This record gives sequence, C-alpha cells and structure tokens, in this order.
Amino acid sequence: MKVIESRTRVRYKETDQMGIAHHSNYVVWFEIGRTDLCRETGFSYRDIEKRGSLLVVVEIGCRYRTPFLYDDEVVIRTSVREVASRSMTFHYELVDSSGEIHATGFSKHLWLDRETRKPVKADAEVMRAFAPFLP
Amino acid sequence: MKVIESRTRVRYKETDQMGIAHHSNYVVWFEIGRTDLCRETGFSYRDIEKRGSLLVVVEIGCRYRTPFLYDDEVVIRTSVREVASRSMTFHYELVDSSGEIHATGFSKHLWLDRETRKPVKADAEVMRAFAPFLP
Amino acid sequence: MKVIESRTRVRYKETDQMGIAHHSNYVVWFEIGRTDLCRETGFSYRDIEKRGSLLVVVEIGCRYRTPFLYDDEVVIRTSVREVASRSMTFHYELVDSSGEIHATGFSKHLWLDRETRKPVKADAEVMRAFAPFLP
Amino acid sequence: MKVIESRTRVRYKETDQMGIAHHSNYVVWFEIGRTDLCRETGFSYRDIEKRGSLLVVVEIGCRYRTPFLYDDEVVIRTSVREVASRSMTFHYELVDSSGEIHATGFSKHLWLDRETRKPVKADAEVMRAFAPFLP
Repeated sequence: MKVIESRTRVRYKETDQMGIAHHSNYVVWFEIGRTDLCRETGFSYRDIEKRGSLLVVVEIGCRYRTPFLYDDEVVIRTSVREVASRSMTFHYELVDSSGEIHATGFSKHLWLDRETRKPVKADAEVMRAFAPFLP
Repeated sequence: MKVIESRTRVRYKETDQMGIAHHSNYVVWFEIGRTDLCRETGFSYRDIEKRGSLLVVVEIGCRYRTPFLYDDEVVIRTSVREVASRSMTFHYELVDSSGEIHATGFSKHLWLDRETRKPVKADAEVMRAFAPFLP
Repeated sequence: MKVIESRTRVRYKETDQMGIAHHSNYVVWFEIGRTDLCRETGFSYRDIEKRGSLLVVVEIGCRYRTPFLYDDEVVIRTSVREVASRSMTFHYELVDSSGEIHATGFSKHLWLDRETRKPVKADAEVMRAFAPFLP
Repeated sequence: MKVIESRTRVRYKETDQMGIAHHSNYVVWFEIGRTDLCRETGFSYRDIEKRGSLLVVVEIGCRYRTPFLYDDEVVIRTSVREVASRSMTFHYELVDSSGEIHATGFSKHLWLDRETRKPVKADAEVMRAFAPFLP
C-alpha cells in the first residue's frame, strides 16, 4: 500500500473561536491528499474529469484526536483502501511534523459519467495507473 | 426523540465545479442544526461556552445520497442520539423541501473544560435543559 | 433605489480564533444578498445562468466597523448601485438586528457568455426585470 | 520594498459551479501571504497574538483579471504598502507559475490590544522586525 504525503498549514481562516482548526477543514485537507495521490498516478483528477468521469463522494468519516492550531503544519497521508469496479475508498491520516497522528478518516467514492451523472465502471486506463497504489 | 428543523439555502460559494454543493458543507450544516437544537433547550451554545464548557467534535460521519444544488433549500433535521456523562452524539438528516432525504450523518462530541481543555462531566444544569431532547 | 434584506446567522465555522466572524465571510454574505435580490426581480440567478449568462466578479471591496460574533443575526441590505450595458455594481450594508451598521461593501460584475466566457451585453429580458431595482 | 512569495494550489473545495476558484478565496490566500510575511520578519503572527496584539482587518479590496482553475498553482506576492503608528496596509498580487497577474488586492489593518480590543500603537519590537519590509 503506497502512501502519498501532502503538506499544508492551518490558515487563520480555518481556525474557530475555540482557537483550533475547525473540524470541517479536515475533510477539505483529505481532498488535498486525494488530489495529490491522483497526480502521482499520472492522471491528475483534473484530467480524470476531462476524460469524462467524476469521482463523487458517497460517504465520509473522521475521528479527531488532537487539534491542529493556527499555522501548524498538517501532513496528510493518503492511501487507497478499497477498490471495486464502480467505487473506491481512500484512507487518510493527518499527522504533525513530529509524526503524531491528530486524526484519521476515510472517504468512499462512486464513479459517475460526467454527462449523464449515472454510476459507471471506472475508466480502465485510469485504473491501470492506480494499480501501484491499490492495497 | 425531539427533532429540530433548521433551514438554509445552498450558497454559490458552497457549490463546486461538479455543479453541486461541496460535500464538506454538509458538516457545516450539521453545525447549524446543533446550534439551533441548543437554542431550543434554553441554553444557546454561546451561553454554554460562556458557562465554561466546550463541546468538541471527536467523530463525524456522513452518507450522501442525492446532491443539493445552488439555491436549493436545505432542511436540517437534528436530534440527540446518545448521551453519556462526558459525551453526546447528534444525528442529522438533510432533506429538501419535499421531504426527500439527501444525506444523513452524525457527530460525536466530548465535553471539555474551557480553561483546562480537559474532558469533564457535562454541566448538570445544561443537561437538565437537554432532557426533553434526549432519546 | 430598492433595498433587499436577507438574514443569516454567524455559523461557528465562520468564527476565527479572534472570537469573531472571519472577514472573508462578509464577501460570502454579500453573495447571499445578491442571490436574494436576483430572486426578487423574478429571474433567480440560477435561471440567469441557465439562460446562458454568467455575472462574474471583477472587483470587491469591504470596510469593517464592528465585528459580528457567533450566532449573531446578520442582516444583509443589498442594492444595485450602477448599471452599464456590460457591467453591474451591487452595494451592501451588513447591519445587526438593531440596525447598527457593521460593514459596508460593493461588488462589481461583468456579464459573460456562459459558453464562450467572453464579455457580452446584459440579457435584455433580465435587465427589464432588474429595472425597478436600478438607481 | 520586500516582496514575499507564498504558494498554494486551488483546492476542489475552492471551485464553484462556474468551474473557477470562487472569488472569496482570494481574500483567504491574501491571509496566507500575510502569515508568511510575518514569519519572515522573525515574529510569526502566532507570536504577535501571544505578545498581546491583534492585527484586525478594517478594509479589503480585490480586483480580478483572470480566474484560477482547480489545481492551479497560485503564487501570492505580499508586501507592506503603508505603515502608521496604529495601522498597516498590505498589498497582494496573485500570479500563476508563468508570472501572469490574475488579481491584485490590499488589506488594511488596525492594531488592537488583545484583551481590551481597543486600538493601540503597534508593538515597537515587532515593528523593528518589520522595518526591512516597510516601503
């Protein structure tokens, strides 16, 4: 299982009045990780959409252990957890620069045809590029 | 089990290039529901924080069925699912104005002391106000 | 000059670690006002896009006087300030429920053809509907 | 005049149904630039707040020329434009990796005492660190 690391910093905008990064941002950070993992396969998600597919989110989950604070570096560790002909699940760990896990989560996706918005089988060429990332 | 209904409309800012409301907003809409449920108890969440407690998020989950589009009305149906001495779980249904369910989700929370940021037992007076909302 | 009032509440997500609503949200609240003003003309902005035009933002400005806090009601007072054949400027006042002004701002927009993304003259039928709102 | 460069990529979350980065994100990107410029002075904005001052936003403006698309790299060029005893104005250029300017903007700020939330003179030690960045 290949893990892709992305890095971002907690923006002031992402803090809330508890003085920590608001929990909804974790879901957005997951998306950064997904984008970077796609890019690593050789098919950026931008290209995947241009080829006619959408990878829509059908489920997400996140467990929060330790908050991130403003300006903290967030390391997003993304991997592919499950693959089926029409769906795909990503797994995420959010760690700090010392490697301590702050949160874990997943997102489950379905392949849709971009025009009809109906579920379709994954683009075979794209899936070949994902092969080295599959569990 | 008492269910509180809140209403919001999908903002243009909340759409993404798929032409639908981005999935991370659902978590923010849940929070609107939670805020409104607290207000209904007589203790607004703003008051709860002033009294010295924080209700931090320790887990969230959301299942997406049908997208919301720009300017759609989103009806947030919020209820309390589980209560323990130190934690609380809310359940959410996001429906449209016809009552069709677009998504369901939950958020699990822990009570923290606002100063020490350590887990504490729920504020007894607040919990009495929540009593009619408990399952 | 007709002024349209919209109402929203400061979401927890919209606060930052200063304990106030983050300034970037004001721009999003302006958009709520714009959406509501369009709806009042009889052409919702959703319809306007379906008819083939986009009203893109080319400039924004905002002056901040008094912060909004979590759960405060924000009243958005939106009006059309200037209209030309290819552009339109909206003006905004953000007031609280007592009528006190917390911020003022504007957004300048250009009409684009949705397909070519080139500047075009405003849709004549839409502009007729806007007539009662023009300064 | 010293210019600090920061880099970010347009997140999927930051796109809207026009298929471009939503204009409100530019204001958030400005803040990334501001954070990085502060860090370069030796006083991170996190430290500045800890020392007891807040640099609140009193005015923003942005002019949009060319949109950014999903996954585009955004280069934020930040500089200090004006300094007075109690205020400070930053200027921003958002360019792409080829150097083409997509947007320009500014933000004007006031120094507040973190406890009283009253306007104060800038922290002298912090301003000494900013000296090489002043126009």
